[in-house]
Amino acid sequence: MSDTIKYLLPESDIPKDWYNIVADLPEPPPPVLHPGTHEPVGPDDLAPLFPMALIMQEVSAERYLEIPGPVRDIYKQWRPSPLFRARRLEKALDTPAKIYYKYEGVSPAGSHKPNTAVAQAFYNAEEGIKKITTETGAGQWGSSMAFAGAFFDLEVQVFMVKVSYQQKPYRRALMESYGASCIASPSDTTQSGRAILEQDPNSPGSLGIAISEAVELAAQRDDTKYSLGSVLNHVLVHQSIIGQEALKQMEMAGDYPDVVVGCAGGGSNFAGIAFPFIGEQLRGGQSIRAVAVEPAACPSLTRGQYAYDFGDTGNLTPLTKMHTLGSSFMPPGFHAGGLRYHGMAPMVSHTKELGLLEAVAYHQTPCFEAAVTFARSEGIIPAPESSHAVKGAVEEAMRCKREGKSETILFNLSGHGHFDMAAYTDYFSGSLEDKNYDEQSLSDALAKLPPVAAS
Amino acid sequence: MSDTIKYLLPESDIPKDWYNIVADLPEPPPPVLHPGTHEPVGPDDLAPLFPMALIMQEVSAERYLEIPGPVRDIYKQWRPSPLFRARRLEKALDTPAKIYYKYEGVSPAGSHKPNTAVAQAFYNAEEGIKKITTETGAGQWGSSMAFAGAFFDLEVQVFMVKVSYQQKPYRRALMESYGASCIASPSDTTQSGRAILEQDPNSPGSLGIAISEAVELAAQRDDTKYSLGSVLNHVLVHQSIIGQEALKQMEMAGDYPDVVVGCAGGGSNFAGIAFPFIGEQLRGGQSIRAVAVEPAACPSLTRGQYAYDFGDTGNLTPLTKMHTLGSSFMPPGFHAGGLRYHGMAPMVSHTKELGLLEAVAYHQTPCFEAAVTFARSEGIIPAPESSHAVKGAVEEAMRCKREGKSETILFNLSGHGHFDMAAYTDYFSGSLEDKNYDEQSLSDALAKLPPVAAS
Repeated sequence: MSDTIKYLLPESDIPKDWYNIVADLPEPPPPVLHPGTHEPVGPDDLAPLFPMALIMQEVSAERYLEIPGPVRDIYKQWRPSPLFRARRLEKALDTPAKIYYKYEGVSPAGSHKPNTAVAQAFYNAEEGIKKITTETGAGQWGSSMAFAGAFFDLEVQVFMVKVSYQQKPYRRALMESYGASCIASPSDTTQSGRAILEQDPNSPGSLGIAISEAVELAAQRDDTKYSLGSVLNHVLVHQSIIGQEALKQMEMAGDYPDVVVGCAGGGSNFAGIAFPFIGEQLRGGQSIRAVAVEPAACPSLTRGQYAYDFGDTGNLTPLTKMHTLGSSFMPPGFHAGGLRYHGMAPMVSHTKELGLLEAVAYHQTPCFEAAVTFARSEGIIPAPESSHAVKGAVEEAMRCKREGKSETILFNLSGHGHFDMAAYTDYFSGSLEDKNYDEQSLSDALAKLPPVAAS
Repeated sequence: MSDTIKYLLPESDIPKDWYNIVADLPEPPPPVLHPGTHEPVGPDDLAPLFPMALIMQEVSAERYLEIPGPVRDIYKQWRPSPLFRARRLEKALDTPAKIYYKYEGVSPAGSHKPNTAVAQAFYNAEEGIKKITTETGAGQWGSSMAFAGAFFDLEVQVFMVKVSYQQKPYRRALMESYGASCIASPSDTTQSGRAILEQDPNSPGSLGIAISEAVELAAQRDDTKYSLGSVLNHVLVHQSIIGQEALKQMEMAGDYPDVVVGCAGGGSNFAGIAFPFIGEQLRGGQSIRAVAVEPAACPSLTRGQYAYDFGDTGNLTPLTKMHTLGSSFMPPGFHAGGLRYHGMAPMVSHTKELGLLEAVAYHQTPCFEAAVTFARSEGIIPAPESSHAVKGAVEEAMRCKREGKSETILFNLSGHGHFDMAAYTDYFSGSLEDKNYDEQSLSDALAKLPPVAAS
């Protein structure tokens, strides 16, 4: 039998609609609250930050939302993305499990993020917006928004967490190549940034701080909106294209997953692959176990509190109910750059509370170990973020081996590691060892919870 | 009309055979000569360096050479590669020309190089070889051989040109992730390396030196062979898969190129896209212009001498007739890392002498300018090497605009620039300016020609 098994859909099979899990959940998610009044927000409250089309998607309860033609057109550059059977990895692990992975690193920006970036750029351009502000951690999101902005002649300004800005000059160069500007956060260009710098001129920054800066700028101008790369419902909806394609591809393979695995930072790539399968289950289809894998150093789903909290450090955003480590949580400077957000997507949190998914956390060294095993078997270098999904899938496969079960495991390889090879260098030199990860500081921070409002 | 036009063949359309242009050329290429006797070499003379299957391909005059099943199987991971119509680039240039590009950056190692690396690894493994030595400049080839070696349990040792080894730690990390070892060249592990270091302890290295080191090691052991990523006939034959797929894809598009463009260092990606089209022409099909684009700082085809020369600096290899800058030529440390070889593939040189192709050279700054225009239009960041092909295609499109012609231009985008973003950073900061390029030194070196043997 052939060792390379790739399931590739024809271009005509790019889904025509995104999938919205809200329509199938047994109860609706808790409302989003206004930070001042603590009353549920309406669409108008969000209008300074987002175009109305995205706000309507954010609050939609429709099961399917049509993908606009120009968005599908750009998707065609790299979609449908391939789904592979990882036969060489199965052999390397000597497991009876069947392992499949959906590979989102085929996008020009190298991850799943363009799935929503292109959609967000489209809706902003449709409503006459000229400029988008956003934040980025490791850089996957900022690169993707820069990529998407170039297609719609949008000016894109990215606030990049300072420690990543310094460690990952390649990501910055990528954003600039696409025509975006990239500023280290905290910066002195915003009030939120200056407030942080006054307290700590050497602040390494955090996603929460960068979000405050981007939100502040967007709120000041009518022709400028803010864009978020994860967490929000409309982002998760856009990412559903991953799981919808995977459903068709598993059918091509004549198989169906027992377990669906994704890494989780803000939650969008995990939701992207898992929600369409959970939706099938909720509508009476086959049951699956959905497993979200997060870093032990930023464990919102496994150790955070389920409570109302701000999305940013400056407390400018509305309050959402989610698993959170507290909006002032400052994660250590470890390598899984994209998985360093203090909170979890409210819809992922709600789905977990409903008992529809599990969460697990791993340290980064065993994740890199799994990633190298994967690279030597399957030929693809996972992003440090995605290495958590690889580790999750490998653990499931090893469990199958112990239990003598030939279960089917599907995971999302959300991106490649081409811009993060310094992390691999550290791993090989032995200097990784969960650098800067300090269980005591993490426990102290968690003990201080709840600093969260309206919970 | 849709702006994203991708022509993707089904997996079953991966060619079953490689194409060998020798069968169609009006006269055979000049023989390869033994460095001692200056007599034509036979297969046995090459046996210490290469497995017999590759030697037989090297000297074959058959038009089609069957692709082994296991090689096609691995090709399936990323092949057939997509061919795009660059409509956004056409609009940005406001040209009546139709521009298509074949994109080889979809391979896991990020370039066309795995097309031959996988084939070479297969034939070596088939003949019981345990270890492969090779050289790499910018790192595309070394990464690809490391990638291919992992599939066949081959130990891979890469001599990487020292200046690149220092400038491109990400490439080294990639090779190590695939399980290969990577040594800066010149090194003290070989006689050739030590000889260079004695003369110049700070030698930045060159491809010619790195080849000498890899060849020396391979010649010493029966279980070790040498592998070259370009230049040789069998490498060009393996790369023909690019052009063979492109022929089918242009048919899907209902179009046929007037001009086929590729960048040329050793010549393999250029030959890969161009030879199948030149072959059609030689067999009575439609005529094309084939344009090889090389860097002004290493202009073997446009300014070198067509003469017998060594493939390496240590003069360990057989003599081949090719366009050469002299085997001791030391190119400046400019960024198009993969295009720094002193010679050109003998088959490309011969085909040029037969009047079947043209060559042109560009400085690197205008190549990066074209690459950034391309990235902002098409969303893909070209490798610095490939930026020469982009520049070549843009120049042809601008000529069409001046002449009011709607010609069809096809170019090979041989790889992405993810591991070379430092070059883009230099470009944006204005510090690129053909750094280290010195017309006087180049002219002096050329004036000293011929230092070449048996010409």
